[in-house]
Amino acid sequence: MALIVQKYGGTSVANIDKLHNVASRVVAAKEKGNEVVVVLSAMAGETDRLIQLALSASDNPMDREYDALISTGEQVTVTLLTMILNKMGYKAKSFLGHQVKILTDKAHTKARIISIDTEKTLDELRKGHIVVVAGFQGADHEGNITTLGRGGSDTSAVAIAAALKADYCEIFTDVNGVYTTDPNIYDKAKKLRKISYEEMLELASAGAKVLQQRSVELAKIYEVPVYVRSSFTNDGGTLVTKEDKDMEKEVVSGVTYDRDQAKITVVHVPDKPGIAARLFTPLSDQNIVVDMIIQNASVDAFTDLTFTVPRKDIRQCQTILHKVAEEIGAERLEFDENISKVSIVGVGMKSHAGVASRMFAALANEGINILMISTSEIKISCVIESKYTELAVRVLHDAFGLEQKI
Amino acid sequence: MALIVQKYGGTSVANIDKLHNVASRVVAAKEKGNEVVVVLSAMAGETDRLIQLALSASDNPMDREYDALISTGEQVTVTLLTMILNKMGYKAKSFLGHQVKILTDKAHTKARIISIDTEKTLDELRKGHIVVVAGFQGADHEGNITTLGRGGSDTSAVAIAAALKADYCEIFTDVNGVYTTDPNIYDKAKKLRKISYEEMLELASAGAKVLQQRSVELAKIYEVPVYVRSSFTNDGGTLVTKEDKDMEKEVVSGVTYDRDQAKITVVHVPDKPGIAARLFTPLSDQNIVVDMIIQNASVDAFTDLTFTVPRKDIRQCQTILHKVAEEIGAERLEFDENISKVSIVGVGMKSHAGVASRMFAALANEGINILMISTSEIKISCVIESKYTELAVRVLHDAFGLEQKI
Repeated sequence: MALIVQKYGGTSVANIDKLHNVASRVVAAKEKGNEVVVVLSAMAGETDRLIQLALSASDNPMDREYDALISTGEQVTVTLLTMILNKMGYKAKSFLGHQVKILTDKAHTKARIISIDTEKTLDELRKGHIVVVAGFQGADHEGNITTLGRGGSDTSAVAIAAALKADYCEIFTDVNGVYTTDPNIYDKAKKLRKISYEEMLELASAGAKVLQQRSVELAKIYEVPVYVRSSFTNDGGTLVTKEDKDMEKEVVSGVTYDRDQAKITVVHVPDKPGIAARLFTPLSDQNIVVDMIIQNASVDAFTDLTFTVPRKDIRQCQTILHKVAEEIGAERLEFDENISKVSIVGVGMKSHAGVASRMFAALANEGINILMISTSEIKISCVIESKYTELAVRVLHDAFGLEQKI
Repeated sequence: MALIVQKYGGTSVANIDKLHNVASRVVAAKEKGNEVVVVLSAMAGETDRLIQLALSASDNPMDREYDALISTGEQVTVTLLTMILNKMGYKAKSFLGHQVKILTDKAHTKARIISIDTEKTLDELRKGHIVVVAGFQGADHEGNITTLGRGGSDTSAVAIAAALKADYCEIFTDVNGVYTTDPNIYDKAKKLRKISYEEMLELASAGAKVLQQRSVELAKIYEVPVYVRSSFTNDGGTLVTKEDKDMEKEVVSGVTYDRDQAKITVVHVPDKPGIAARLFTPLSDQNIVVDMIIQNASVDAFTDLTFTVPRKDIRQCQTILHKVAEEIGAERLEFDENISKVSIVGVGMKSHAGVASRMFAALANEGINILMISTSEIKISCVIESKYTELAVRVLHDAFGLEQKI
């Protein structure tokens, strides 16, 4: 007997039929003698519908009201699933974020969980009840409803699993696990049986969208084993867990890409202390996340600074930077939206030499020019022209023999 | 400057355009220097949509989950209105039932308000904010969401007005006041400028559907002046208030009817003590509300018992009563669904003689047979064949000169 937290995403709860399918899975876990906590997202499309409603009320809706509005999506699915479970003869109870005291900070629309009071949930589990919790939402200490950002239900589930010291957390989604790369781009992509928290984090930051990044961070901190599974098949899925010896044998676990970046170059700027701060502070003030940054070696006390930002923020960057560029005496700014980032990720990199050069060679062989490079302990990313994205992914997948993964 | 509670019903908040209209009215009240609390229903049709969802999950959904589900309707309207008010430049904040501590008992789907903590609301009003509260909902002392029954937003509004000691409560609906009778049945119906709580209660219990009965009871207890107004016109509406001398001059204030009743007769039953209890206890155990009851004078130690029940409950009554009738030795049961109840209501009845005979004569003149009669201090009701309903309403309206009301 185990204590399990199961999370079902929007496509898994898209309508009453799918909720019946979810109920069957929940009941199956319960019938095996497990204690089961279920975390649900809103029905696929419902959050977008609510966002449209908000935008029809105001082009700039207040965050506090926005959160209270869109959190209704999960309130609908948890109550419906609980009704279905009851009808099937199982005792179940739904809870909203504030009811199981998912306390968050006050950062509406992207709140972070501070603590979860498990008393109510454990009490219900002890009575043999199935506990169904609304994902994506919490409440601040004044009782205002907050939401955790896109994909926040993953984080709800992992946080609840951590707080309950659950044996494991299952994330049911519309893919049946984590793949060596996007199967839509390369049909040789293989499902990974197991992947480390660190690799999963790098994959998420590199553009793969299986789990919300924060949920993986939490899973890593609290060492919650996370299974990524499809709610539509009985496939074993992918286990996200602590790094082990098996993983280290593999040099690279996955290839991923991110098409949502743009590149900005500040050309011929006087290389004085404080230039970077002058450039990046106004961007971070506007919550624009700068990803890769490269500064060329200084020539005659002048340098070039290149960095990437989310493509959606490029207009705002232009406005902000034209003013700053003038102030700091830069010659000009260059903006390039036709770029992609391709990355290889693997814990084995730490102990294997020559991984980077193998990556660069593979790209060069296909005539793909590398515009920027950044590396971490277990990830190498290259910015390339976006038209080469799919080709680069396939080439790298082949170069590291990922089609032979089990 | 006054403290006002305004409640807008489902048709007044049916879409974003109508919410803009509501916002304009709220702002107008605020601009006059008033402190304004707004209570909203769900968008017209939304509660029914949610009920259908519930019924598609389970033919007998758990009350607790049902309440948490349907309460989302008001959550949507209060957040949208608050966004609109903010966009118009007014500081506003929405609150759900549990957030302003509308504490209710645990009777899901028909909960009663126990107390309202006004601290948060008064605090917001003091800051000059408009407070927008979700109607229809509260929470029990364990934090479970409860709802107050159909029309419960009226009760929310009056209860909040009472708790805040508001100067008055405005109920905005799709009719512009309380009429002497249903204008759809008789075009001579006149809008009442003023009506007493007692008359309003009798009108509601006699079938008029302008305000939820409980809201009128609360208004009466706490002496909250209630204006019933249309949100689509600038008509002065009807004031529901304490009885005054003006009202006593009028014999009858209104004529109303109820087509949703059925009549049951228990024929030739031995007239022994405890017979009525044997009959009615099993009905009240099933929450079936018995309205009028008549017992004939006993003949040879046998009597007939006639009573009315909501027509929707007639099948259930048949099942229950066939068993009871046998046990108590009744000859047979008769069921009649083709009946209506017509009633005249007026505080003036207390001091005017001959009102009942005038009513009976008016009906008799048109050949309308009276099947049952019941009277209260300020109401007389007659059960008649349902085909005569409209005719009876018009005849009584004429008989008491209601077309001359101002």
